[in-house]
Amino acid sequence: MAATEGSKLWGGRFVGDTDPVMEKFNASIAYDQRMWDADVRGSKAYARALEKAELLTAEEVKQILPGLEQISEEWSKGVFVIKPGDEDIHTANERRLKELIGAPAGKLHTGRSRNDQVVTDMRLWLRDAISTLTEDALQMISTMVERAAAEIDVLFPGYTHMQRAQPIRWSHWILSHAVALSRDVDRLQEIRRRVNILPLGSGAIAGTPFDIDRELLRKELEFEDISLNSMDATGQRDFVVEFLFWASLCVTHLSKMAEDLLLYSTKEFSFITLSDAYSTGSSLMPQKKNADSLELIRSKAGRVFGQCAGFMMTLKGLPSTYNKDLQEDKEAMFDCYDTVHAVLQVTTGVMSTLKINQSVMEAALSPDMLATDLAYYLVRKGMPFREAHGVSGKAVFMAESKSIALNQLTVEDLSALSPLFGSDVSSVWDYRSSVEQYSAPGGTARSSVLAQVEHLRNWIKKLKTVTSAK
Amino acid sequence: MAATEGSKLWGGRFVGDTDPVMEKFNASIAYDQRMWDADVRGSKAYARALEKAELLTAEEVKQILPGLEQISEEWSKGVFVIKPGDEDIHTANERRLKELIGAPAGKLHTGRSRNDQVVTDMRLWLRDAISTLTEDALQMISTMVERAAAEIDVLFPGYTHMQRAQPIRWSHWILSHAVALSRDVDRLQEIRRRVNILPLGSGAIAGTPFDIDRELLRKELEFEDISLNSMDATGQRDFVVEFLFWASLCVTHLSKMAEDLLLYSTKEFSFITLSDAYSTGSSLMPQKKNADSLELIRSKAGRVFGQCAGFMMTLKGLPSTYNKDLQEDKEAMFDCYDTVHAVLQVTTGVMSTLKINQSVMEAALSPDMLATDLAYYLVRKGMPFREAHGVSGKAVFMAESKSIALNQLTVEDLSALSPLFGSDVSSVWDYRSSVEQYSAPGGTARSSVLAQVEHLRNWIKKLKTVTSAK
Amino acid sequence: MAATEGSKLWGGRFVGDTDPVMEKFNASIAYDQRMWDADVRGSKAYARALEKAELLTAEEVKQILPGLEQISEEWSKGVFVIKPGDEDIHTANERRLKELIGAPAGKLHTGRSRNDQVVTDMRLWLRDAISTLTEDALQMISTMVERAAAEIDVLFPGYTHMQRAQPIRWSHWILSHAVALSRDVDRLQEIRRRVNILPLGSGAIAGTPFDIDRELLRKELEFEDISLNSMDATGQRDFVVEFLFWASLCVTHLSKMAEDLLLYSTKEFSFITLSDAYSTGSSLMPQKKNADSLELIRSKAGRVFGQCAGFMMTLKGLPSTYNKDLQEDKEAMFDCYDTVHAVLQVTTGVMSTLKINQSVMEAALSPDMLATDLAYYLVRKGMPFREAHGVSGKAVFMAESKSIALNQLTVEDLSALSPLFGSDVSSVWDYRSSVEQYSAPGGTARSSVLAQVEHLRNWIKKLKTVTSAK
Amino acid sequence: MAATEGSKLWGGRFVGDTDPVMEKFNASIAYDQRMWDADVRGSKAYARALEKAELLTAEEVKQILPGLEQISEEWSKGVFVIKPGDEDIHTANERRLKELIGAPAGKLHTGRSRNDQVVTDMRLWLRDAISTLTEDALQMISTMVERAAAEIDVLFPGYTHMQRAQPIRWSHWILSHAVALSRDVDRLQEIRRRVNILPLGSGAIAGTPFDIDRELLRKELEFEDISLNSMDATGQRDFVVEFLFWASLCVTHLSKMAEDLLLYSTKEFSFITLSDAYSTGSSLMPQKKNADSLELIRSKAGRVFGQCAGFMMTLKGLPSTYNKDLQEDKEAMFDCYDTVHAVLQVTTGVMSTLKINQSVMEAALSPDMLATDLAYYLVRKGMPFREAHGVSGKAVFMAESKSIALNQLTVEDLSALSPLFGSDVSSVWDYRSSVEQYSAPGGTARSSVLAQVEHLRNWIKKLKTVTSAK
Repeated sequence: MAATEGSKLWGGRFVGDTDPVMEKFNASIAYDQRMWDADVRGSKAYARALEKAELLTAEEVKQILPGLEQISEEWSKGVFVIKPGDEDIHTANERRLKELIGAPAGKLHTGRSRNDQVVTDMRLWLRDAISTLTEDALQMISTMVERAAAEIDVLFPGYTHMQRAQPIRWSHWILSHAVALSRDVDRLQEIRRRVNILPLGSGAIAGTPFDIDRELLRKELEFEDISLNSMDATGQRDFVVEFLFWASLCVTHLSKMAEDLLLYSTKEFSFITLSDAYSTGSSLMPQKKNADSLELIRSKAGRVFGQCAGFMMTLKGLPSTYNKDLQEDKEAMFDCYDTVHAVLQVTTGVMSTLKINQSVMEAALSPDMLATDLAYYLVRKGMPFREAHGVSGKAVFMAESKSIALNQLTVEDLSALSPLFGSDVSSVWDYRSSVEQYSAPGGTARSSVLAQVEHLRNWIKKLKTVTSAK
Repeated sequence: MAATEGSKLWGGRFVGDTDPVMEKFNASIAYDQRMWDADVRGSKAYARALEKAELLTAEEVKQILPGLEQISEEWSKGVFVIKPGDEDIHTANERRLKELIGAPAGKLHTGRSRNDQVVTDMRLWLRDAISTLTEDALQMISTMVERAAAEIDVLFPGYTHMQRAQPIRWSHWILSHAVALSRDVDRLQEIRRRVNILPLGSGAIAGTPFDIDRELLRKELEFEDISLNSMDATGQRDFVVEFLFWASLCVTHLSKMAEDLLLYSTKEFSFITLSDAYSTGSSLMPQKKNADSLELIRSKAGRVFGQCAGFMMTLKGLPSTYNKDLQEDKEAMFDCYDTVHAVLQVTTGVMSTLKINQSVMEAALSPDMLATDLAYYLVRKGMPFREAHGVSGKAVFMAESKSIALNQLTVEDLSALSPLFGSDVSSVWDYRSSVEQYSAPGGTARSSVLAQVEHLRNWIKKLKTVTSAK
Repeated sequence: MAATEGSKLWGGRFVGDTDPVMEKFNASIAYDQRMWDADVRGSKAYARALEKAELLTAEEVKQILPGLEQISEEWSKGVFVIKPGDEDIHTANERRLKELIGAPAGKLHTGRSRNDQVVTDMRLWLRDAISTLTEDALQMISTMVERAAAEIDVLFPGYTHMQRAQPIRWSHWILSHAVALSRDVDRLQEIRRRVNILPLGSGAIAGTPFDIDRELLRKELEFEDISLNSMDATGQRDFVVEFLFWASLCVTHLSKMAEDLLLYSTKEFSFITLSDAYSTGSSLMPQKKNADSLELIRSKAGRVFGQCAGFMMTLKGLPSTYNKDLQEDKEAMFDCYDTVHAVLQVTTGVMSTLKINQSVMEAALSPDMLATDLAYYLVRKGMPFREAHGVSGKAVFMAESKSIALNQLTVEDLSALSPLFGSDVSSVWDYRSSVEQYSAPGGTARSSVLAQVEHLRNWIKKLKTVTSAK
Repeated sequence: MAATEGSKLWGGRFVGDTDPVMEKFNASIAYDQRMWDADVRGSKAYARALEKAELLTAEEVKQILPGLEQISEEWSKGVFVIKPGDEDIHTANERRLKELIGAPAGKLHTGRSRNDQVVTDMRLWLRDAISTLTEDALQMISTMVERAAAEIDVLFPGYTHMQRAQPIRWSHWILSHAVALSRDVDRLQEIRRRVNILPLGSGAIAGTPFDIDRELLRKELEFEDISLNSMDATGQRDFVVEFLFWASLCVTHLSKMAEDLLLYSTKEFSFITLSDAYSTGSSLMPQKKNADSLELIRSKAGRVFGQCAGFMMTLKGLPSTYNKDLQEDKEAMFDCYDTVHAVLQVTTGVMSTLKINQSVMEAALSPDMLATDLAYYLVRKGMPFREAHGVSGKAVFMAESKSIALNQLTVEDLSALSPLFGSDVSSVWDYRSSVEQYSAPGGTARSSVLAQVEHLRNWIKKLKTVTSAK
């Protein structure tokens, strides 16, 4: 029973031999054209492998390669014309090649399937994308590290639970985010290794029955390794989901930094002022200056994770090898790349141009933030910490009851709480001395912070050497 | 310290007064232009409210309304020109209005904020989208119900755990999915009610200080009700997330039906044959006919839920009222609408054109699927079900041991298992009689299935009346 | 080849006839025992239906019902003993019934399957859970509404983009959250209607072949309606995912309120002070008082949505009817219920005990927050809003340049910006007058806020009447 | 205003000084007690560091270490008594230590915070968990590889799009999944490196002000490295989310394998028979044998990803450093570990005990699956692939029209389609010869499959050496 008859019988919407909604639903050319360059590069390498396998003559290769070059040029100049029937980038390029060089174009797909072709294209594309994102992230971390080095003497309150906790260096805060991002970069290089595997030569499912030299393909396309199993090679998208999740965690880190900065840029905190380039006004309220850039950064963590969640759900319970469901891979990958690329650049811009209000930051330090140091004063005089913690808590309460600051308690006041207090307690009330005590690795003392700066500078240098070699 | 200086100090990427990446990152015009019609309708209504509040003269309104009409025409003809600075559809339309009519355009935004404007536009847009999706879904359900009515006499195996369970009617299977979709339609109407609330007149956060008649706005824009609290009205996106989740559940239902049909269209089951309009071939394997349409439907459940998950994550822990994070609402809403709109149409096409292979379906019924009926035979003779279940299980085992079908066991064989077996046991082995027993409401007997058909036909009729009245 | 042999051949971990890891993996009794009451109620009703269908004698029913009563008592007293082999609550209860009354117990499962039994139990359980959550939410909303009524005269800054926007009433803020929660309650009642459908009598897939009176079952179990299709009835979990998503959106609302309150309870805002009952200290820092309750509330939005996302993913692409995958439904449902139940109670506790610091709140109002009103002053004198917005912006800039507050600009200063300014501009600088202007429905004027209070009081009253009738 | 008064005023539920719901909501002891061993080990190492820093005397350490030993013993014997007030494992252990040894217990927390303590405990616990999961996965992969080696001569249909594609080796299918799992193991080792970092010595936020030798702590606890920044160390949970996502991808792989096996175990495919140990029956249908194990494996992909999604959402937009929201980390981590641990064991059990039905598998090969080879026959005779693909397609159509198998077309039939066909075409119709052609790396030829087996055997050996050294 033909489509048309069927529709007559049960009254479905009209369909003839083809359904335009289905054709659009099925086609990927609208977005996968973005991989035109990877597709051409893959085909050029494959032509050489076919030549070695004697499936193409030298003569044919001499037609194919310039044909592919011309396609490349058409794309890069924006003059490539997509025609009806070009459902994806692979058919579009092959169709064009045939127009340009005729018969030999029909030999290019020998032993190849769109199943191994598409995944080769994606890996080539993503490898380049990872290089760009690595550069974006390194530039951002570098900006942060240098800012941390330049502003190392600025103190401000460190918060836990959004409550003032202990005095710290502003640079210590900057570096806490830089360190998280450096892990993202490290992770991205690990993913790159798994992206950088040649699947071409896996055919649709069973491999290739011709003398296709996969090692030659690997070298031509500069992959590090060759896929182990043709069914896995064509049916897995681990490298995509790994990337999507990487992007999610990276932007979640940035959402955390954005949240801190949004707090710091409220009127109530007033620690920082964003550059106008990263702020916007209100259509209603003339006085408003909103930190839209930071809000957008924060919001993108959801968007990116949504792409990851969506594609993971698509993969759940899918039978092995290629199923059309996998076509969802590309839009997710492109969107996450675009988003992270923009977010990293905007965050770098924000971090390199925001003004800190040092006097406000330092004025926000209050003596009660030294209550821990007060307890440590007692610990150093021999009192067990638990007890010292209790005594210090009582001092805080006493000061509150008297409506005075903690450092305004007299030695007499304190002595009533513990005989260990002496006049040297006054040394506790210095914020700079306080932070300098935290000199163990990772702490907020000047030396510890400088060590972090040095560590990251070296790490950046090493990374740049490694990645530029790729 | 200006942006430029900052960048000099810490080496961030160059930024001048503005950052083009930030501008693109911030702008929504690329996608929110899709709401041009809603935006124009909202502005027309608002102009009338301003006139009533004596903030616009009749004269000014006579300039504004035709100006808005012309903008509308430009959009619908595709000749509206977006200019630099048009960051969103609201500013684009207002900018164009000013070009067209000059000064009075500057009065249109009196007492209005983009915060209440954008959410009004979205509600108008989504209300229309819901109408379209309701029609799509009704057409699909109607197609299914009529097909179920037409093919009511076809039997085939019902499966649980992907294993043959009991004989059922093919129509019973169709209706099991139609019933699920009818719940989706019901839910969508509930969401429509919550979408259909006027937020305009809420300003940026505090409401409006002018005599804006919100009841007049409600009537003009045909909303059912008026938002209760201005902070909630401008800062909540419940109606969007409800829609995103609705789309997720709806497509998850379709992914379930697609999975069934994918199984049925395997060579091994061979119950159905898809129309060529919904199948595609392989670039490598000449014999392949793949059910791409069904795989795509199945995959979209992930995509749509990903949008929902992403936006929910964006909302998590967001402070109340408008934050720029909310800008993520639109792309998610559009994408889910487009996807569900396409999925419903393609599924309708698939369901109205697929061929069933009745003989294969009925040949797949096997006597062991009547083992439950064999137990019921004993129950009817007075044996407790648990015991009857055990005896029937032994019969299955006996038949397997003898490598014969369950119905090939002789009365003697069976009597050895229970004295209750008599020659009337032969009546058990008729598939049509079997299904006819299941005549309680919701069962697979002809009468029960017809009752379901009638129920759904009436429900569709009622729904159509209600929705066409809207 | 038996399990044991297989393991010898390929070296898998040892397995005999059974695998204890598999048995534990398969069993649900550890958590589904929680539905013991629903299971017993379902069985009692089913016994009556079997009696009517003459599959049980009156005599047998007289044994079964007291037997079930006793099981009920054992569970409620905590003395029911789970035995090996009790893989789920259904088998546990039936096993115990057999111990108690012998043979007739074996008849109880006639025509019933665990497939329709489990989903009946879940619907009964969830119906009760929804009642409890409705009460929790109403108590919370009521607390908020009464607090809003009591503190209606407190003003404080309204924020958008986390920046001070316009003066509003504290009660307006409270009600913005109460209104969102009232939508949650409305939605929950809609879900209740879809939960409240009888699936019993659907068997494993095909329905029931006996004269089971499903209408009798419906009445006995107080369901509103009967499921339409047996395959759908046993294989769908829409009511569970709807509930999981409901819980997600509800807790996301609370995460938003918690985020606001966390901001307000920072030292920098100092608008509120949490009761000690909802705060905790630090193990290290004696001065710390952390708003752990609010942080936990905020965090639970993730937890609950995770359950929803997980179960949606489990459902994706699942074939229709019962598959064991559906067993994931219960832990998700229980966990979401427990979480929302706790979150609503804790939030009610927080909201009923926090102290507001009215003087700090009002001191946080600053003249620049009236810049919109300044523009409106000009609008009222005839200036188009866009122009007035610009003039007001210039006034803000002028004040900033002079390092004075906006309201300290003299009439002369202002006149330089626009001749429309007169000495009556001084009337703009009154926060109470400002908020009183916003008197349209939904605005922050006293009358508008009181109207919201009244609306919600009536809504609560109506809801209580409706739900107590259930 | 006290809690009680507040509740009087606004009618919230009653609260006194404490709220039992809040206490339960806040406490983590119910689940974090699972880390008792890690907590004790951490404290022992910390005691030694305090001794070196002269904050504990040798005498005190001599009391503390045996005290901690005893606590360890109490936990391992199951006799440790949790008391009211033991909100988490850290306070429980310290409380008990104080009971056992008195005053010196109060010194143990000197310079330590629960913020660095809890994350140290989690890293120690997860490191062990990763070792167990690595072993589980290696055992499973090893089982699969050995089975692949043993059954290398079994052919069956390879599927793409759930449609028969090309003949492949059963072992090739097994290895396609083993290869995916080997990537999971590799990824897990990378995560292990990032888990294996010492955070202790980071305090609450600022580091430690005492001479705590972090290098000594690292050695004692066998960490590979020391955290770089104290704010990051106490506030990040990257290692947890990385693990949650790892678990998600791993179980998604297993859901894919389970789906294949579920298909293969349907009556319609009948390629495999599960061991009874991994199957269950039906409460209604005596003949049913359901592959519950596989369905559960498939379902767990949702569960595990749900935990990941939930915790990611909790992290989104969270300010830096410790916030109570992070408490959601532990239940997610434990649940994912438990699930993956069980899933890997059950899958190993399934794979080591299932029976294959070789004759059915091979009977499912059909000549149309060689249509690609038929095209390649023409390619080898010089026809461009695109043309050969077309000719082969016509042959398929011709055979269908004649209702004969593709290999039943005569040489004459074929010659009508292309003059290149000769009598040697008969060589195409041999399945074993067909698969042997696919001998490039990764293909389904015997040599290629054996190379995969060898590769994986070596990889397993290497992994075992590396991990046993840890």
